[in-house]
Amino acid sequence: MTRVAVLGAGGYAGGEVLRLLLAHPAVEVAQATSEQHAGKRLDFPHPHLRGASTLRFAPHDALEPCDVLVSCMPSGELIRRWSQVSPLAARIIDLSADFRLGPVDHARWYPRAPRPAELPEFVYGLPEWAGARLKDARWVAVPGCMAHAALLGLLPLVRAGLVRPEMVVVDAKTGSSGGGATPDRSSHHPERASALRCYRPTGHRHTGEIEAATERFTGTRATVHFSATAVPSVRGILATVHAFAARPLEDANEPLRALASTYREHPFVNVLRANASASPFPEPGPLSGTNHCDLSVDVDAERGRIVVNAALDNLVKGAAGTAVHALNLMLGRPETEGLGFRGLHPL
Amino acid sequence: MTRVAVLGAGGYAGGEVLRLLLAHPAVEVAQATSEQHAGKRLDFPHPHLRGASTLRFAPHDALEPCDVLVSCMPSGELIRRWSQVSPLAARIIDLSADFRLGPVDHARWYPRAPRPAELPEFVYGLPEWAGARLKDARWVAVPGCMAHAALLGLLPLVRAGLVRPEMVVVDAKTGSSGGGATPDRSSHHPERASALRCYRPTGHRHTGEIEAATERFTGTRATVHFSATAVPSVRGILATVHAFAARPLEDANEPLRALASTYREHPFVNVLRANASASPFPEPGPLSGTNHCDLSVDVDAERGRIVVNAALDNLVKGAAGTAVHALNLMLGRPETEGLGFRGLHPL
Amino acid sequence: MTRVAVLGAGGYAGGEVLRLLLAHPAVEVAQATSEQHAGKRLDFPHPHLRGASTLRFAPHDALEPCDVLVSCMPSGELIRRWSQVSPLAARIIDLSADFRLGPVDHARWYPRAPRPAELPEFVYGLPEWAGARLKDARWVAVPGCMAHAALLGLLPLVRAGLVRPEMVVVDAKTGSSGGGATPDRSSHHPERASALRCYRPTGHRHTGEIEAATERFTGTRATVHFSATAVPSVRGILATVHAFAARPLEDANEPLRALASTYREHPFVNVLRANASASPFPEPGPLSGTNHCDLSVDVDAERGRIVVNAALDNLVKGAAGTAVHALNLMLGRPETEGLGFRGLHPL
Amino acid sequence: MTRVAVLGAGGYAGGEVLRLLLAHPAVEVAQATSEQHAGKRLDFPHPHLRGASTLRFAPHDALEPCDVLVSCMPSGELIRRWSQVSPLAARIIDLSADFRLGPVDHARWYPRAPRPAELPEFVYGLPEWAGARLKDARWVAVPGCMAHAALLGLLPLVRAGLVRPEMVVVDAKTGSSGGGATPDRSSHHPERASALRCYRPTGHRHTGEIEAATERFTGTRATVHFSATAVPSVRGILATVHAFAARPLEDANEPLRALASTYREHPFVNVLRANASASPFPEPGPLSGTNHCDLSVDVDAERGRIVVNAALDNLVKGAAGTAVHALNLMLGRPETEGLGFRGLHPL
Repeated sequence: MTRVAVLGAGGYAGGEVLRLLLAHPAVEVAQATSEQHAGKRLDFPHPHLRGASTLRFAPHDALEPCDVLVSCMPSGELIRRWSQVSPLAARIIDLSADFRLGPVDHARWYPRAPRPAELPEFVYGLPEWAGARLKDARWVAVPGCMAHAALLGLLPLVRAGLVRPEMVVVDAKTGSSGGGATPDRSSHHPERASALRCYRPTGHRHTGEIEAATERFTGTRATVHFSATAVPSVRGILATVHAFAARPLEDANEPLRALASTYREHPFVNVLRANASASPFPEPGPLSGTNHCDLSVDVDAERGRIVVNAALDNLVKGAAGTAVHALNLMLGRPETEGLGFRGLHPL
Repeated sequence: MTRVAVLGAGGYAGGEVLRLLLAHPAVEVAQATSEQHAGKRLDFPHPHLRGASTLRFAPHDALEPCDVLVSCMPSGELIRRWSQVSPLAARIIDLSADFRLGPVDHARWYPRAPRPAELPEFVYGLPEWAGARLKDARWVAVPGCMAHAALLGLLPLVRAGLVRPEMVVVDAKTGSSGGGATPDRSSHHPERASALRCYRPTGHRHTGEIEAATERFTGTRATVHFSATAVPSVRGILATVHAFAARPLEDANEPLRALASTYREHPFVNVLRANASASPFPEPGPLSGTNHCDLSVDVDAERGRIVVNAALDNLVKGAAGTAVHALNLMLGRPETEGLGFRGLHPL
Repeated sequence: MTRVAVLGAGGYAGGEVLRLLLAHPAVEVAQATSEQHAGKRLDFPHPHLRGASTLRFAPHDALEPCDVLVSCMPSGELIRRWSQVSPLAARIIDLSADFRLGPVDHARWYPRAPRPAELPEFVYGLPEWAGARLKDARWVAVPGCMAHAALLGLLPLVRAGLVRPEMVVVDAKTGSSGGGATPDRSSHHPERASALRCYRPTGHRHTGEIEAATERFTGTRATVHFSATAVPSVRGILATVHAFAARPLEDANEPLRALASTYREHPFVNVLRANASASPFPEPGPLSGTNHCDLSVDVDAERGRIVVNAALDNLVKGAAGTAVHALNLMLGRPETEGLGFRGLHPL
Repeated sequence: MTRVAVLGAGGYAGGEVLRLLLAHPAVEVAQATSEQHAGKRLDFPHPHLRGASTLRFAPHDALEPCDVLVSCMPSGELIRRWSQVSPLAARIIDLSADFRLGPVDHARWYPRAPRPAELPEFVYGLPEWAGARLKDARWVAVPGCMAHAALLGLLPLVRAGLVRPEMVVVDAKTGSSGGGATPDRSSHHPERASALRCYRPTGHRHTGEIEAATERFTGTRATVHFSATAVPSVRGILATVHAFAARPLEDANEPLRALASTYREHPFVNVLRANASASPFPEPGPLSGTNHCDLSVDVDAERGRIVVNAALDNLVKGAAGTAVHALNLMLGRPETEGLGFRGLHPL
């Protein structure tokens, strides 16, 4: 059994990491830390863990050596504690934004984050694209949830040269759980329940993450026009990628083929085809709790637009599930181990 | 592997039966029938089954012999087809109301249902109370979802003689999925999304089911005053049982002890205690997809009222999960096999 | 024009009081106070007041003399400031619980509230029942929102001697806006969005308010068994009153006649009849923003139960609208002035 | 009093037209027709009209002469009945798509609609842009709800030459009420309640409407890349317009000035400024029931993107309210008459 500690496990992503790891056949959850809930049982903040464990939260400083550390602390925290924390684990998987970007991009998008002289180099853990690099990785940064959805849809088109990289619009819609477990006015139920608001029309940090990742994985850096809109749900992201044909398409199905061939061997990405289902559109609802991403692609031949929609659960495929997926790959375990849940419908 | 066929598998309960059985280690899904979806793949109406099976729906008449038949057809259908269907399976688990009541109660509450001269005798499959009878059962009727929740809360109090059986009020709140997959005006999203309506203040058929079950399991027939209210959710039931002390309580915790001792050995029923959780109230949200029921009990000593709240997922503990639970018991398998999912939070 | 000041106008009830008064033809809003928003425009916390006023919030201490004061401060605040505030206004309408109960009941249900030696005597402002007393009132206490709904349904039955007063169950369902504008964990959107939780099974303070009001208005004090359940909506209350026949009914419509005759002349209470509408059940959705309460009554003759359902908007009929209704009556204005909004459907 | 008949008044837009007209001081509702509800009272399908009228629906064929006809029939119906209906009213306001487009565009986007040899010429009733033409209009076509939102945001930028007309992306989010009152699978509550699905990524008919209107009102025809996404709400649209600077901006506020100066004199369009509110983003929630549209504009100077967000209530500003607004202008009444409702918050 691999001994895994979860740092900052009192929030929503932490709760999902715990849910997945407690049911993982090759993992033992050695520790879970939370300043707020130290001394309490795991199910105190996480009602879905009732009966799943008798473990109690430890304070961060009580962290002991382990095989793998999964950090769910907010951005800025792992960087700040790097010198104390990093020696305690052979491998580290971080869910924050601390190590997703190279030094130049990091300085630009997170100018106020405390930075060590030398930023440790993490593998950007987009499993379907990081591939073999994850197997040998010591340190892995889990992508941001909206970047994750957008990239799974966009990368095949950029790599195939189908779309103009200088003009990509990503309109992402997100539920409230991405904002975390700390209450504030904008997440107060009477204010949020009917919210349909573009809370970040420009300047969202995932912009930089998507741009950097297009370069990393395809060699071509896209210019990404990103907006994020809050919708009245708790879980789930739908990223709509509006891209524009770089050349005449062979036929209307060429983008679909690019997506389908990219993910043919990847168990967690499904490319939906019209008419195959009574629910032919990617939507996050039935993916809640799963590590799956559903994609679709549509073409407006007359106007030269290619639209990809990508749906996923921000807390699983967009966070905790990808952490476990990366863990499986790092440990040489079967890719889908502990990630078999298929979702619920209706929900 | 036990070969199981699912009759009427195109609706919501059928979809959940399929989800659970397709992941069950001791079961092979041999057939799934649906008139509406005959010839289509299981994931056509059930998006959460994408990738889980290549099976296609057969029409009802194509049903072949199997070890166990799970019928999810609407009430009235299995009775009507009894002579053709019953010889095909050694064991039958029915999710409809056809066989939940004895002949007298059935005639009273379902006066228009077609009835064979001799109604086959099914075991009323409330697992925590039917006990050993389920192990030997050939035919099992899964309780109605709201009756199920109310009974788990009420039965321990009646059996212990704590409450007056002639005066029990059950105020049940339910999501929309209990109404099934067929659209109508009252389930049309603009009409249902903000619904908070007591759509069945009196005369709900689960009244008879609860009354009959109190007699069956405790020897005392309660008089139940039942109302059902639609709330703005999809999954889940909260049944609030208002009962009245039959005698002075030993102390304020006596009802809690009655519940806790009843379910101590039962893995799917959890009795919540105050302060053990940041979410100390039974609520169906985090139970979505699970086979668990959460209970709490409160006492108004001054007025002599004992209030039990019971929460469960109507499609799982209230339908498909109990079918699988019964199947496990009938087959001598571990009680929780295939039912390990713990739920999601937040949701 | 009557000059009205609104004390504690930064919360949800205050926002609705302002909305109604700013459009009221006989009223001038002289001041609105809020500690949190002092100096800000009214539409800063209240987006629906954009363009409706250029007034800015004053701090509480800046309150100046006015004709009528409407206080929306939390319970305990007006009592505490009584000696400073009460001389400033000829008439005071209070939306808190400070003055709803007589001294004995107040001490029992609000033991920690600061109390002056002599509690000022307010008229309990249930307009349809307080009647002429409101016209002469100097001080009016607006009823609690859930008590208001329950009482409108229950009082006609008690007065007519139709139900047993010692056994009344009130199961109230409520949206999140009743909890006010201050964020906390239980109102955090991811925790509240799917909530279906009986958060106050016993001991709710509206119990005492309902019991006292039955005595005040009918001469018979009912014993009320009250529970409050949070449902996934923002606005609205549905109170289900389960009462029990005190004697054989003349016929099944006797309770309906009792309700209908009580409210025949009252413009804001509607008694729904079966089949008169495609939406025959009282539900708060289409009543949002209105000062209306919809009632229905059903009878289970066999078991002797009479069920009344009462729906209203907790922020309007349950708070701000009743304040304006009382104001109209106190000022001798037309009862419905400024309260003509009919609601939206669908919503 | 102007006598107005409402044709096809049994649906959601019809219900809102009736709500507004019944409270309009200069209008008498002479007739309301509905095939489905003929003979029933207006409040049978429209619970929010309880007490507002004793009128009953007539069948379409019973339509009598009137001053103004408002048609809420589905697209295709008014065209089909044109020869019978048009002689009955001096003025006609149509809420369908029948007369929004010129003959060429109509044939392209509605190829299956029955078309008279000569399509009557309607004024495209976008009030803030149609201006004086509405005053003299005999026939007015109310814009489509999503087109309406997008155009209010886009037109000022195109007219000012600020954005490249050949590359405009409109990502519209919509509630379920836009789909009308007829139930189907996609609007069935369990399927729709958590929907976040881009149901029309390309080919939406409002594309043509927006393109044609840019040409009509600015002289420059934009190429519009339009997608429509269903979100979990009932009312409301948020249209996010992603446009690209055609030239260097004078400063970051130039687009804001273009919007603000365009709508300075228009009472129903509000341009939001950052920090002026605790809710600084356009969102349809607090606009429910109102005839207002909220706009905001943001600039990504580095990437040359200008983002406009436009929020409105699809059934009011996007349908019934604009019909009444046009009616006011046609009759020479005050522009805001009957349209004074300010909305509710929270909702």
